[in-house]
Amino acid sequence: MKPTSQKLLAEFIGTCWLVLGGCGSAVLAAAFPEVGIGLLGVSLAFGLTVLTMAYTVGPISGGHFNPAVSLGLWAAGRFPASSLATYIIAQVAGAIVGAGILYFIASGAEGFSLDSGFAANGYAEHSPGKYSMGAGFITEVVMTFFFLVIILGVTDEIAVPGFGGLAIGLALTLIHLISIPVTNTSVNPARSTSQALFAGSWAIGQLWLFWLAPVIGGLLAGFVFRSLFGKKLVKV
Amino acid sequence: MKPTSQKLLAEFIGTCWLVLGGCGSAVLAAAFPEVGIGLLGVSLAFGLTVLTMAYTVGPISGGHFNPAVSLGLWAAGRFPASSLATYIIAQVAGAIVGAGILYFIASGAEGFSLDSGFAANGYAEHSPGKYSMGAGFITEVVMTFFFLVIILGVTDEIAVPGFGGLAIGLALTLIHLISIPVTNTSVNPARSTSQALFAGSWAIGQLWLFWLAPVIGGLLAGFVFRSLFGKKLVKV
Amino acid sequence: MKPTSQKLLAEFIGTCWLVLGGCGSAVLAAAFPEVGIGLLGVSLAFGLTVLTMAYTVGPISGGHFNPAVSLGLWAAGRFPASSLATYIIAQVAGAIVGAGILYFIASGAEGFSLDSGFAANGYAEHSPGKYSMGAGFITEVVMTFFFLVIILGVTDEIAVPGFGGLAIGLALTLIHLISIPVTNTSVNPARSTSQALFAGSWAIGQLWLFWLAPVIGGLLAGFVFRSLFGKKLVKV
Amino acid sequence: MKPTSQKLLAEFIGTCWLVLGGCGSAVLAAAFPEVGIGLLGVSLAFGLTVLTMAYTVGPISGGHFNPAVSLGLWAAGRFPASSLATYIIAQVAGAIVGAGILYFIASGAEGFSLDSGFAANGYAEHSPGKYSMGAGFITEVVMTFFFLVIILGVTDEIAVPGFGGLAIGLALTLIHLISIPVTNTSVNPARSTSQALFAGSWAIGQLWLFWLAPVIGGLLAGFVFRSLFGKKLVKV
Repeated sequence: MKPTSQKLLAEFIGTCWLVLGGCGSAVLAAAFPEVGIGLLGVSLAFGLTVLTMAYTVGPISGGHFNPAVSLGLWAAGRFPASSLATYIIAQVAGAIVGAGILYFIASGAEGFSLDSGFAANGYAEHSPGKYSMGAGFITEVVMTFFFLVIILGVTDEIAVPGFGGLAIGLALTLIHLISIPVTNTSVNPARSTSQALFAGSWAIGQLWLFWLAPVIGGLLAGFVFRSLFGKKLVKV
Repeated sequence: MKPTSQKLLAEFIGTCWLVLGGCGSAVLAAAFPEVGIGLLGVSLAFGLTVLTMAYTVGPISGGHFNPAVSLGLWAAGRFPASSLATYIIAQVAGAIVGAGILYFIASGAEGFSLDSGFAANGYAEHSPGKYSMGAGFITEVVMTFFFLVIILGVTDEIAVPGFGGLAIGLALTLIHLISIPVTNTSVNPARSTSQALFAGSWAIGQLWLFWLAPVIGGLLAGFVFRSLFGKKLVKV
Repeated sequence: MKPTSQKLLAEFIGTCWLVLGGCGSAVLAAAFPEVGIGLLGVSLAFGLTVLTMAYTVGPISGGHFNPAVSLGLWAAGRFPASSLATYIIAQVAGAIVGAGILYFIASGAEGFSLDSGFAANGYAEHSPGKYSMGAGFITEVVMTFFFLVIILGVTDEIAVPGFGGLAIGLALTLIHLISIPVTNTSVNPARSTSQALFAGSWAIGQLWLFWLAPVIGGLLAGFVFRSLFGKKLVKV
Repeated sequence: MKPTSQKLLAEFIGTCWLVLGGCGSAVLAAAFPEVGIGLLGVSLAFGLTVLTMAYTVGPISGGHFNPAVSLGLWAAGRFPASSLATYIIAQVAGAIVGAGILYFIASGAEGFSLDSGFAANGYAEHSPGKYSMGAGFITEVVMTFFFLVIILGVTDEIAVPGFGGLAIGLALTLIHLISIPVTNTSVNPARSTSQALFAGSWAIGQLWLFWLAPVIGGLLAGFVFRSLFGKKLVKV
């Protein structure tokens, strides 16, 4: 297999796992009676999908699993524009397959219904805590901004080697600990797209925000990081 | 002691700890009144058994603790066929001893009964969330597939050194966060066997699935990983 | 950008994230109905803000994000007095911006009110568990003392390289697991200041303790560590 | 300060933190109304006390913080008999100071009473889940046995460097996830002694078990590990 194909396959597998693991824990286990894992368990699950896959295929593809990450890395000068389209397609395709597997499993229990949202992202009446569109938009921009700042920092040439996957995965856990009540947490348009395709018309109708806001946050972080910290830093 | 004996003993000890710790937390602490650890705590416990033992005896035996892992590594060309049988026997024996210790401890409280399942795996009416046999089968295949992909990736020669045990342990935590409601999560025939021996006839009757599905998932991952990523990868 | 400006910006960003993530998880997600993250989730969130930012900007600024840390490092002879004022200003400014973003997001849900405390720190009638001022004071001194001992130890020249950010972040998680019921946990005057500005007069009135006690604890740890462990240690 | 004094002080500080953090989280935060951290949070706290202090003072004293660990390391041939007495005295003294600080803080809330147990260990009627003395004894022997096997393995010369503190700390978390319902989890006679001194006559009367069982488990692990894995291992 050619290196390029391996990279795209790595992104496909990683994003599939992100959706299957993160959204899967939310759909299957979050509200299990008495002993459910809650939002804390879901937050941990999302982070661990990225932590595990970062160490698994990170050396192959860079381990983005997220269009906003690919775009942010491009903005920071760390990823070629020529690879953006194929990476993003692989990510969205992987997310959709992950959601499909989850749908098959989840529908194996009586009483399952897509009406409970299938872990799709939403704002206003579809926000878990009924947060406004404005609050949701700013949340997604800000969370993705910090996510990319962390990604850019921990993979910088002056960073401690090896701990990048740990820090990035746990950053995603942290982001979910903060913001699930606001938008169900996206910061990842691929993950939003796959769930919206299953959750139906309301989710499709709100999907624009979960592309626009994370992409703005990611690009902003890329440009800001490059301009502020891009020049060789002097160590403390 | 000969190296081969050390390896088998390492697998025995590690799998004993996996069952004692993982199933032990489920039986003893998951539903403790008011402050029980829930499925999140059980998921963490399973993962930490593997994380701790991977760093403890991983350098000795490779740290499989699971027949599906040994078979998957064989399929990927990373483990000799000649060692499969003894490894699997050591794993199952260790699991049974772990379950025996747990039974002794658990039965030291009044009101203990094996009728609550002893953390055995099950489908249909014995699935915690009453998921169908088909959903359970696919869940076990898919979860073991991704488990082996992660194991193969993080121990690849291009992987970040040292973090393998962390990523593999936390991958098992993640898998439990997703799938305890479906099958009580196996992905490990040794762990299923030991609990079924204690839980009784229904669990023995369903045990075939928890050998077949994880083994399929593990073998599939081994073959796929080898064919797609086996050739020397070009770094990003 | 000059190295000094980069350092101050790094402290600004890190402390902003600490408040947005730590206090944000408390305000937005801790008591979410049925599936809220609770004090455990908030503890994890605070720790992960520091863990992630330590690996992100630690190589730039040292990753203090906390006036008590800067002062403690100075007392230990590891940070120049000439940088104290600007670091502390950057930290407080970052915290205030973080609290401002959080206020915007939190007020996007109906029924939000600052009367629930906005994660401000307090004692006596404003302690979550109604702990006395004396208990709160000692708690903040002791927790900050141990926090600094850990920071000084894990960044010592004889420490295991690379694991500092992990240990320091998880130390902050641990401190929150212990002491949220007592004072809502500060150990960080910048974090207390930003929340007090929003929470109002009672919090401003109690703010002295959350500067005085953490600073005493931090300075004490710095002097003690330097005098006891400062001389070249002989390895075990 | 002389190296020997530094080692004893390191053990004192580490064990003080273990008790203050582990037992502190149990006494102050485990059962906090609505959002308490539960047994999962307490388990995490105990593990993080050891994880943080292992990286802080591990390079100074070896980071035992536990008489059963010192004795197990001696049995494995890794710690000199001549240092046992002073290490154990430093550990017990540190634990008592930690318990004293905790007592001061905890008694700063109205309604605090030592009758709730002060996180002391117990069996039979004083076991959290009313487990028998036999179950408690075996639990403490077995859990300490595995704890020491892990400690010996992850600090072996063939182990992955750097990850020892992580694996040992998380092993203690795992042990608590399993066994708090049985004995409130000791595996550490120093921690049991300090709490028993405050909890009163019943805890003093049961204290023998929490010295005897962990010490047996620790010694057994030391002898077994040395005889089975002591000779230079052949890598896989």
